[in-house]
Amino acid sequence: MKKLAQQIVFSIVAIGVAGFAFAQAKPEDEIRYRQSVMNVMGRNFGGVLGAMAKGDRPYDQAAAVKAASLVDMLSTLHFDAFAPGTDKGAPTKADPAIWRDPAKFKAASERMQAEVAKLPAAARDLAALKAQVGETGKTCKACHDDFRMK
Amino acid sequence: MKKLAQQIVFSIVAIGVAGFAFAQAKPEDEIRYRQSVMNVMGRNFGGVLGAMAKGDRPYDQAAAVKAASLVDMLSTLHFDAFAPGTDKGAPTKADPAIWRDPAKFKAASERMQAEVAKLPAAARDLAALKAQVGETGKTCKACHDDFRMK
Repeated sequence: MKKLAQQIVFSIVAIGVAGFAFAQAKPEDEIRYRQSVMNVMGRNFGGVLGAMAKGDRPYDQAAAVKAASLVDMLSTLHFDAFAPGTDKGAPTKADPAIWRDPAKFKAASERMQAEVAKLPAAARDLAALKAQVGETGKTCKACHDDFRMK
Repeated sequence: MKKLAQQIVFSIVAIGVAGFAFAQAKPEDEIRYRQSVMNVMGRNFGGVLGAMAKGDRPYDQAAAVKAASLVDMLSTLHFDAFAPGTDKGAPTKADPAIWRDPAKFKAASERMQAEVAKLPAAARDLAALKAQVGETGKTCKACHDDFRMK
């Protein structure tokens, strides 16, 4: 009984902390943060890995592995920055469908993250990189088609 | 002699490629990219590691190591995005001193990178993290004092 009471107190404190953290985050800062994450991801995925896969940039294993690891680390961050209330406050292409159907948005983000997680290993070999850039790119596009406005 | 000729041809091609890459990069994209990198760094250094060091956020080893590794990976990227010609083209706080005294700017960036490189190991322990956040923060501030406009 004492343990249950402790758990309840802990839960209330945890909710309070989360609520405080949310109250502190300004929508414009959240929008800027998720855009920054996607800009850095895009440059390293498209500008480095995509360019190597297409032959627009010479393949360099160390640079490829670094870019792939960075994209992998970044791939979860921006999804924490789509809290309710961050649909406006600064210019954003985020589609209202994100907040209307969060389960579908979450599933799309997880499909992307699963493919991105394979990039660092694939980046060690140009043929594998080409294949994995293609598979990953499909999941980027699928999510952008549904959840990014024109 | 043939080898020397080949080297000269290779050097000319390399310069040509670099020149092409530079000509392709629009100043506004470079400015946005370096700002994005610094935004993501700042959130993970200040908002995660700094907050844990100050006790504003509970210490979580896994989250600390992840944020520290991310900051470490990001810490070299934006310095590639201060090429000549990117001093204007979009709103920027980059001080003209960056292009007037590139050696001093490079030295300041390297002092920051050297401290940031110690963060992932330090993040495994709260006392070590506190100390290393302090040392790292000084190098951030030193560079911002000299090279970021108010």
